[in-house]
Amino acid sequence: DMQDMEFTIERGKLFMLQTRNGKRTAQAALKIAVDLVHEGMLTKEEAILKVEPKQLDSLLHPNFEAKALKDAKPIAKGLPASPGAATGKIYFTADDAAKAFGNGEKQIILVRLETSPEDIEGMHVSQGILTARGGMTSHAAVVARGMGRCCVAGCGDVKISEENKTFTDKAGKVYKEGDWFSLDGSTGNVYSGQLPTTAPEMTGDFGTFMSWADELRTLKVRTNADTPADAAQAYQFGAEGIGLCRTEHMFFDSDRIKSMREMIVARTEVQRRKALGKLLPMQREDFEGLFREMKDFPVTIRYLDPPLHEFLPQDDEEIQALAKEMDMTFEDLKALVVSLHEFNPMLGHRGCRLAVSYPEIAEMQTRAVIEAAINVNKKGMNVTPEIMIPLVGDVKEFKYVKDIVVKTADEVIKKAGVKLEYKVGTMIEIPRAAITADEIAAEADFFSFGTNDLTQMAFGFSRDDAGRFLEDYYEKKIYEFDPFAKLDQSGVGRLVQMAADLGRKVRPDIKLGICGEHGGDPASVEFCHKAGLNYVSCSPFRVPIARLAAAQAAVKAK
Amino acid sequence: DMQDMEFTIERGKLFMLQTRNGKRTAQAALKIAVDLVHEGMLTKEEAILKVEPKQLDSLLHPNFEAKALKDAKPIAKGLPASPGAATGKIYFTADDAAKAFGNGEKQIILVRLETSPEDIEGMHVSQGILTARGGMTSHAAVVARGMGRCCVAGCGDVKISEENKTFTDKAGKVYKEGDWFSLDGSTGNVYSGQLPTTAPEMTGDFGTFMSWADELRTLKVRTNADTPADAAQAYQFGAEGIGLCRTEHMFFDSDRIKSMREMIVARTEVQRRKALGKLLPMQREDFEGLFREMKDFPVTIRYLDPPLHEFLPQDDEEIQALAKEMDMTFEDLKALVVSLHEFNPMLGHRGCRLAVSYPEIAEMQTRAVIEAAINVNKKGMNVTPEIMIPLVGDVKEFKYVKDIVVKTADEVIKKAGVKLEYKVGTMIEIPRAAITADEIAAEADFFSFGTNDLTQMAFGFSRDDAGRFLEDYYEKKIYEFDPFAKLDQSGVGRLVQMAADLGRKVRPDIKLGICGEHGGDPASVEFCHKAGLNYVSCSPFRVPIARLAAAQAAVKAK
Repeated sequence: DMQDMEFTIERGKLFMLQTRNGKRTAQAALKIAVDLVHEGMLTKEEAILKVEPKQLDSLLHPNFEAKALKDAKPIAKGLPASPGAATGKIYFTADDAAKAFGNGEKQIILVRLETSPEDIEGMHVSQGILTARGGMTSHAAVVARGMGRCCVAGCGDVKISEENKTFTDKAGKVYKEGDWFSLDGSTGNVYSGQLPTTAPEMTGDFGTFMSWADELRTLKVRTNADTPADAAQAYQFGAEGIGLCRTEHMFFDSDRIKSMREMIVARTEVQRRKALGKLLPMQREDFEGLFREMKDFPVTIRYLDPPLHEFLPQDDEEIQALAKEMDMTFEDLKALVVSLHEFNPMLGHRGCRLAVSYPEIAEMQTRAVIEAAINVNKKGMNVTPEIMIPLVGDVKEFKYVKDIVVKTADEVIKKAGVKLEYKVGTMIEIPRAAITADEIAAEADFFSFGTNDLTQMAFGFSRDDAGRFLEDYYEKKIYEFDPFAKLDQSGVGRLVQMAADLGRKVRPDIKLGICGEHGGDPASVEFCHKAGLNYVSCSPFRVPIARLAAAQAAVKAK
Repeated sequence: DMQDMEFTIERGKLFMLQTRNGKRTAQAALKIAVDLVHEGMLTKEEAILKVEPKQLDSLLHPNFEAKALKDAKPIAKGLPASPGAATGKIYFTADDAAKAFGNGEKQIILVRLETSPEDIEGMHVSQGILTARGGMTSHAAVVARGMGRCCVAGCGDVKISEENKTFTDKAGKVYKEGDWFSLDGSTGNVYSGQLPTTAPEMTGDFGTFMSWADELRTLKVRTNADTPADAAQAYQFGAEGIGLCRTEHMFFDSDRIKSMREMIVARTEVQRRKALGKLLPMQREDFEGLFREMKDFPVTIRYLDPPLHEFLPQDDEEIQALAKEMDMTFEDLKALVVSLHEFNPMLGHRGCRLAVSYPEIAEMQTRAVIEAAINVNKKGMNVTPEIMIPLVGDVKEFKYVKDIVVKTADEVIKKAGVKLEYKVGTMIEIPRAAITADEIAAEADFFSFGTNDLTQMAFGFSRDDAGRFLEDYYEKKIYEFDPFAKLDQSGVGRLVQMAADLGRKVRPDIKLGICGEHGGDPASVEFCHKAGLNYVSCSPFRVPIARLAAAQAAVKAK
């Protein structure tokens, strides 16, 4: 590798002091690797190992033009929370950002003290996000990275007044809504004014290098995507299908949550079916969009997963408002909210347990998937939808839901008078499912390892609560890494390996994938290759990272 | 076996219609079995298989004298929620019952609409409990069975007025505090007045039969006991040690919770140690009592397990009162309560995670255990305490806590100038611990399978929340039994077997036990025998059931 060498000459003698791999940018690393292959100095296999997969991230986002950046002077600096460069007009609330977007504004920077889930829509329409508080794992940082949005977080240098919609820099200069700003999410620098950006460049050396990676890898790379926009982005980054579409995300949109809530407050199956009937065309349309963006690559659709109380408000004021909207008394709605309360929502009434209690939900979702596939296939596509049942712990519960799916799907297909293949598989995310994977494989066409939940249940701690003590574990050297970011191979990994082996024993051609966040982590991708999985699935901006990691795993295993 | 035969004679011919095993009471079953052995018709092994273990329960409680019972006429009937016979004066609140007990009243029946955790002390001092509401799994029923108290639940025949402290039977007769009543927990009958009771008889046929069971079984039977009274009861029923002492139960007593709370609200280690110092002598005394009652049988002491917020009040009024008591502002205490809130308390900051964050808790508990053992050994006992670390998921976390235990214990022993052996082991209740049991066995002297939590985490549902959907699962024939009552052998059982095998591979003499509620379920006991465990541990009143079940398992396996 390129070496950074330190030496000295004393009394006529050359002393080599130390040598280490030379640091370089992602662009430089790619160029060196590609050039060395072209010059015959490295094989493609060797070249593939020379680039750190995580480095690729910086190539997937816009950057500022080098010259402009050199001349610009930052007015503040925060944490480089999500890479990329953004330039736009500042807005101080998610609503204001969304309104500006509605009025045709295309370059928006959202400035907040900190963000919360209600800000999602405003974050979506922004090119960049600046927060005064919070670290690398704050809401803003995590969500921005997932969206591929540029973000500078925890920028204490500026004083934000959300009431006055202004912020003040250290020099005391005050900026207001509509002023132009530029954010560099790779350095944390904040600039006043507009800086010219360059679009990400995925051709040239990058394209050559990634084509070698694709030649060498055996592991497929899919994406986790819930919207056609995400799917399109991932396709552009080389995704070979969708490994996880979380259908519930489609229900949170403001124009849909009402029907979802009608479904939840329904007292009879008839009422519930009526509300589900309103959701059907929306879901069908979503699925058609995903199929179209994925151009015949496989699309795995996971059925409703979260507990129903997540769709209802919790505080009395909002319950009051919703009761009015739903034409219920406050007392009735409040009683429902209370009755849906769970002590441990992670271990509650969710996933396929909802479909067992309310089979009509699975029926509606099946109808939407199958009708969508028929519709796009009529227009010349050749889609084989993959239906995924979440949170299965026992083959009998999988079979119960699968029977509903198959009955509904076959009816829809027969009525349409077409031919359509479809698969029904399951998440493996509950320890008991991994342990009894042989029984489940007798019924399931595929397994997708949901290593987020599997990690939580195997370790017996929830991600939301572990923050309280994991710091102590790192400090006391009990854990060396975050098991939610990097797959715990000696524990959770043993479960994955066990389930893969048991599954293949019963169904040798079973398709095996992973759709937890580990699917985008290079070390975890290597583990998946060794375990013999067929694919990994990760968020769109991690697809190139996973492609390279998969190639490296294949080369190392040779 | 004794047969109940049906036949008919038609046209001179004898037709045998059907035959089935004859039903009989526990006493009769025992007498038949013992007589047949004495007459040489059955071997002891055969006789052991003739009695249903769960039947023994009725022999462990007082009964009404047969003649008196025959003459008595019940005034009401409820559910036979917990077996036994009780006669005493009625009281309508737990406080009143406790007060009466304090004034020397020895025969008390607690009458409530329904019971809640605040009634525990009143239930403890009562011989019987009568509730108007609730089923076989209501609070009153479950707690009474655990305590071995007679209970008639859900007795809708009577109208209870808690305000007036009266109840009215169907005939309209009104009864008041201090009136005599008799409850039959085996039939659900409620009698007005005093009925004479007979004490449980554990000699005679019962004694003979159980001595054969003890000869035949290889599995030891211990008990789950947190108080010397429970330990004494279990010893009388044949328990061969304590498999689980839940130390936190000792902290809930009204005279101790204050020190516990001082520990929790402490802001510095110094303050925390001061509060722990107040708890030390109380714990030491508890442990001395347990050791004494168990007469040199092994006693396994589990360290603090529940999350700290369980020790703090949650509603504002109580927080206000406690703040005053603790000399804090309401705001400070409220902020602490809020900061300790967990999304999924089952998967939160509890078990050994507390000891990792606050090693001084484990130090105090170690000091209490070791000092107690030294004190009783000085008086001629020969106790080897077993210290059990809960909720371990990784060998490094076990090692971290074990190091604290060993350091503290060895200091105390050295200072006392005595010799004392002690063991340090762990619960296996987290899936990851079962999967990595080989690593953990390298450090742990023993494993105790906590199959309550292991079931929750392996299935991915919490016991508190599963009620919402398990009914649907039974109705739809997905589950055939409650996995919390009967061990799920094909899932959780595989984890237990895996951990047992991995543990023994690394440490052939590792002691293996089970301390979940399954320890008292006959089918689960048979599984434990097959899996090669050394002991099961169950609540005191299940000890004889487990002894017989263990003997049957040994006979069947031959």
